[in-house]
Amino acid sequence: MLSEAARKAGVDVLMPCGGQGRCGRCAVVVESGAVRRRSTQRLSPDDVAAGYALACQTTVEEGDEVVIFVPPQEKIERRLKESKRAEKVALPFPYDLHDQPLRKYAITLDPPSLQDQTDDWSRLKRELARRYDLQNLQASLPVLQKLGVALREGNWTVTVVVELDAFDRPEGPPRVIDVLPGEHLESLWAIAIDIGTTSNHVWLVDLISGKVMSQKADYNGQIARGEDVISRIIYASKGGLEELQQLVMETLNRLIKQAAREKHISPDEIYKAVVAGNSTMMHLFAGIPPEPIRLVPFITVVNQLPSFEAREVGLGINPQGTIDFLPGIASYVGADITAGVVSSQMCNVGDLSLFVDIGTNGEMVLGDCSWLISCACSAGPAFEGAGVVHGMRATAGAIEEVWINPEDYEIAYRVIGDEKPRGICGSGLISLMAEMFVSGVSDKSGNVNLNLPTKRVRKGEHGAEYVVAWADETAIGQDIVITKVDIDNLMRAKAAIYAGFSVLARSVGLSLADVGQVLIGGAFGQYINVSNAILIGLLPDKPFESFHFLGNTSVRGAYMALLSREMRQRVTEAGQMMTYLELSADNTFFDEFNAAMFLPHTDLSQFPSVAKMLEGRE
Amino acid sequence: MLSEAARKAGVDVLMPCGGQGRCGRCAVVVESGAVRRRSTQRLSPDDVAAGYALACQTTVEEGDEVVIFVPPQEKIERRLKESKRAEKVALPFPYDLHDQPLRKYAITLDPPSLQDQTDDWSRLKRELARRYDLQNLQASLPVLQKLGVALREGNWTVTVVVELDAFDRPEGPPRVIDVLPGEHLESLWAIAIDIGTTSNHVWLVDLISGKVMSQKADYNGQIARGEDVISRIIYASKGGLEELQQLVMETLNRLIKQAAREKHISPDEIYKAVVAGNSTMMHLFAGIPPEPIRLVPFITVVNQLPSFEAREVGLGINPQGTIDFLPGIASYVGADITAGVVSSQMCNVGDLSLFVDIGTNGEMVLGDCSWLISCACSAGPAFEGAGVVHGMRATAGAIEEVWINPEDYEIAYRVIGDEKPRGICGSGLISLMAEMFVSGVSDKSGNVNLNLPTKRVRKGEHGAEYVVAWADETAIGQDIVITKVDIDNLMRAKAAIYAGFSVLARSVGLSLADVGQVLIGGAFGQYINVSNAILIGLLPDKPFESFHFLGNTSVRGAYMALLSREMRQRVTEAGQMMTYLELSADNTFFDEFNAAMFLPHTDLSQFPSVAKMLEGRE
Repeated sequence: MLSEAARKAGVDVLMPCGGQGRCGRCAVVVESGAVRRRSTQRLSPDDVAAGYALACQTTVEEGDEVVIFVPPQEKIERRLKESKRAEKVALPFPYDLHDQPLRKYAITLDPPSLQDQTDDWSRLKRELARRYDLQNLQASLPVLQKLGVALREGNWTVTVVVELDAFDRPEGPPRVIDVLPGEHLESLWAIAIDIGTTSNHVWLVDLISGKVMSQKADYNGQIARGEDVISRIIYASKGGLEELQQLVMETLNRLIKQAAREKHISPDEIYKAVVAGNSTMMHLFAGIPPEPIRLVPFITVVNQLPSFEAREVGLGINPQGTIDFLPGIASYVGADITAGVVSSQMCNVGDLSLFVDIGTNGEMVLGDCSWLISCACSAGPAFEGAGVVHGMRATAGAIEEVWINPEDYEIAYRVIGDEKPRGICGSGLISLMAEMFVSGVSDKSGNVNLNLPTKRVRKGEHGAEYVVAWADETAIGQDIVITKVDIDNLMRAKAAIYAGFSVLARSVGLSLADVGQVLIGGAFGQYINVSNAILIGLLPDKPFESFHFLGNTSVRGAYMALLSREMRQRVTEAGQMMTYLELSADNTFFDEFNAAMFLPHTDLSQFPSVAKMLEGRE
Repeated sequence: MLSEAARKAGVDVLMPCGGQGRCGRCAVVVESGAVRRRSTQRLSPDDVAAGYALACQTTVEEGDEVVIFVPPQEKIERRLKESKRAEKVALPFPYDLHDQPLRKYAITLDPPSLQDQTDDWSRLKRELARRYDLQNLQASLPVLQKLGVALREGNWTVTVVVELDAFDRPEGPPRVIDVLPGEHLESLWAIAIDIGTTSNHVWLVDLISGKVMSQKADYNGQIARGEDVISRIIYASKGGLEELQQLVMETLNRLIKQAAREKHISPDEIYKAVVAGNSTMMHLFAGIPPEPIRLVPFITVVNQLPSFEAREVGLGINPQGTIDFLPGIASYVGADITAGVVSSQMCNVGDLSLFVDIGTNGEMVLGDCSWLISCACSAGPAFEGAGVVHGMRATAGAIEEVWINPEDYEIAYRVIGDEKPRGICGSGLISLMAEMFVSGVSDKSGNVNLNLPTKRVRKGEHGAEYVVAWADETAIGQDIVITKVDIDNLMRAKAAIYAGFSVLARSVGLSLADVGQVLIGGAFGQYINVSNAILIGLLPDKPFESFHFLGNTSVRGAYMALLSREMRQRVTEAGQMMTYLELSADNTFFDEFNAAMFLPHTDLSQFPSVAKMLEGRE
């Protein structure tokens, strides 16, 4: 091994994963000489082409002389991150950017006179019809309330914001959203919103360029009233509906304000929003009692919300701006999933695709161009960092990847922002579960082995636990640990998701082996290390190339529907095409769930690569 | 004269008008014998057929013996009132009563199951489409907010209130206004509203029978902030817009509550309103700054308000109920006038008709089936009892008619409700002006003759005045008087209206002599005594049969538009057909106004019947 050769030559190469080829930190550049790379797991093809090799996984070809360069660790870290980012697919945007229905017109009207006493509104309509062929133009009351003043303040030159059509009225009629005195054509703003149970995302979009100019995200303010949709629904049904609506509106309005401030605009200049989210979040956003979602037979009041003006719910954009909603399918397959399906382009591939969004719930869709079937399973918020003692969101200070040395059970970790750690985010938890299992810190049921010769395993307040970071290394002044309770939560989450995959495939007479590509959406999805996720049995065992991380496909779907009428049409069609499989009405789900309550699974034949790796271990 | 014969026979016949045949109180029944009636001014044809004759205007045929019966005065009073009411035309309603667009459906849905998880809103739409062919059904957010609860509370039987179309969307789409658990088909309520500057009128309508079930009226609460539209507009422009909107809403909501309580219903059961009113009142109702109405060139912001939900302005009916607005024509010819024109049927007569609505402003329309031209003149609120010291609305306690004896200048009056008088209403003021003029209490310029030998003429706080009722006869404990200032206000009002008639006719190359019928709308119009109104030069000098009192044609037009889509269409057409003549841009108006500042007019040839009566007086 190069690593041994280097050590012998007095060069220290870091190997935090204990030389298993998993952490990638021992990467060196082979400057000359022939080597054989046993594994390039952490290296991209570009890395290999550039001469990179993992010191712990590379041997020198017999008789050759090799010159290696050991890059500074920072450079390796950067490459690791970059290659990690490169895993994320840059989704195509195959639609016309200028096919969005919002318009700004600056027009000058002939002033009224005693000879032409036409009323202001008719005068405006007359001119807009003449110049832009806008027929049957509508206006809501607040626009009429400001019209007369705006016309006179602008000395009969005004800028009119018109929405030609909307999600629920694709044929129009056009509607005036705002009238401003004078000429203001420089910009036209809108927002795409994803309302997650845990996180809310807002993208501020410049409709003229079609570009996302600011992205803001934060925890959904409703979390204080329940971490998952079920507890929110219960809270709503006990008189908390209005409060929950206000809480999410406060979060969104804060994000909108932040984004607007960043671009030096007023939120009033944002004339449209497209919203995606799961069905419960959509109900709460609209102030609709979500109770039936929770109760058998799990019914939404409405899957496709009608478009309405922002003032109806107090969303902090222009009060007359339209809010369009993407369509949901069922109580637990909401607009976030139709948004994901369409923005993932899974309909356009031809290959059998599995789309999965791992958020607080795990939602998944199987299909190709001609059919789509979906289901949902309650994963819980563990992978979002909630329900785990030291769980946190994937922000600065979160441990996002770990490596445990199977010899001494010591751990190395990478922290987002290279700060002192404050907790562990979802990808860190998956990584931790995988490393604990592979290193023997836990068994296949997730039980922590308290007999190991290390202080890192111990009995804590919540049972057996493993110390990830000692208090003095952290930013929180206490040990960061993972407990058996945390592991149980994570185990249930991953088992539910994998069981969902299995039942979905079987329901259409297929198996997971038939799946050509796995598309992973959700804000969280993009941080998952595929090998680790396969290792714990969260994702099906497929070649690395089969997986595509799409990022937050919900907000992306909303963004695309904002920019393109064709996309809007596609989302509607996807919603109509998609079948929903109710897992609670499916007898096989609980069997599959129980079978998946192991690392990686009771049926190891479904995880051949993991089986191979474990070979000879036990 | 019968009166003299009666006196000689020792029978006392009352003659409060001094035997001029104007008050009708000396009516007697000729039981046998031949008489000659010189005037039957106060008698209806039915009265004459029944043998009634005015004692002061009837002579005995030479040589005949006559038996007369003197009825008790109460009976005469009652007949006078009844004949007066009979003058009001019962307007035809030539439209299908069941052509209104509001529907109530009671339906039972198949409950959802794990096999049919269709969302509530789609389930409802599916069933309504199947059973009633309702396509593209819409619902606003509050309906969706209550839908899930209503369906489950009603155990999947609900009553759905649907509006198939509305004033500004005659082609639909249909819209769900309310969903109620269970079956509630017994009633369907709506209201017609007239917002006058002075008075507000509300008619509660049972849409099933088409009948008006309750009528309520009161002063517009805005009066405290200005008596005419101009002062309201100024108040609004000084930051009082919202307050004015609230004030009229309070008045209307109080009237709605009263009407609802009377019929034992909740205002929430009222699902629709149609509103008429002048343009300023419509702007204030909708919270639209009315300033441009007041300023040259007198422009409204909007003549045809779009339909919107009651909750948008806080009108106290069902919050999702639609408010439809009748169209106005110009700043001073509003929806009350289009309502009047159509409900007056003037379009359907063929004869040249003059429609006039005397409210705070005098609005008038001239035309026939093929053309309509309108104008407005600022009459001021004098005829509505405002701007006159003892003016009041035509309610109990108002003096509504007077007779002055030209010999001793003593006065007799009739009070609404036969109570002690509290003031003088519009019809009383017209009657008073006429009687003062004819009896010589005032001259043709309206100056009170202080030299008359009666205590009733005197110098008061506001100059010369005439005492109509002494303090001890009144309910207010002080003398009820009419002052020179009052008379000047009334004079300006009547001159403005008559000048409007003249200019309007001349603008189309006609004269008032060409007018076949005069249709008098407005709540006030119905109380006018035509003879008196001609005598003071308020109405053109035409035979009694030419005049038709139509009552409040504004609220009636709203009522008709509520019941009939055809009427709705007619109002829209009338609005489009009608030309507006801006009097302030017309050079002849002020000449005509000045010419009309006499009793009855400087040009007596326009008032031949009055000229004849005055013959030999001066």
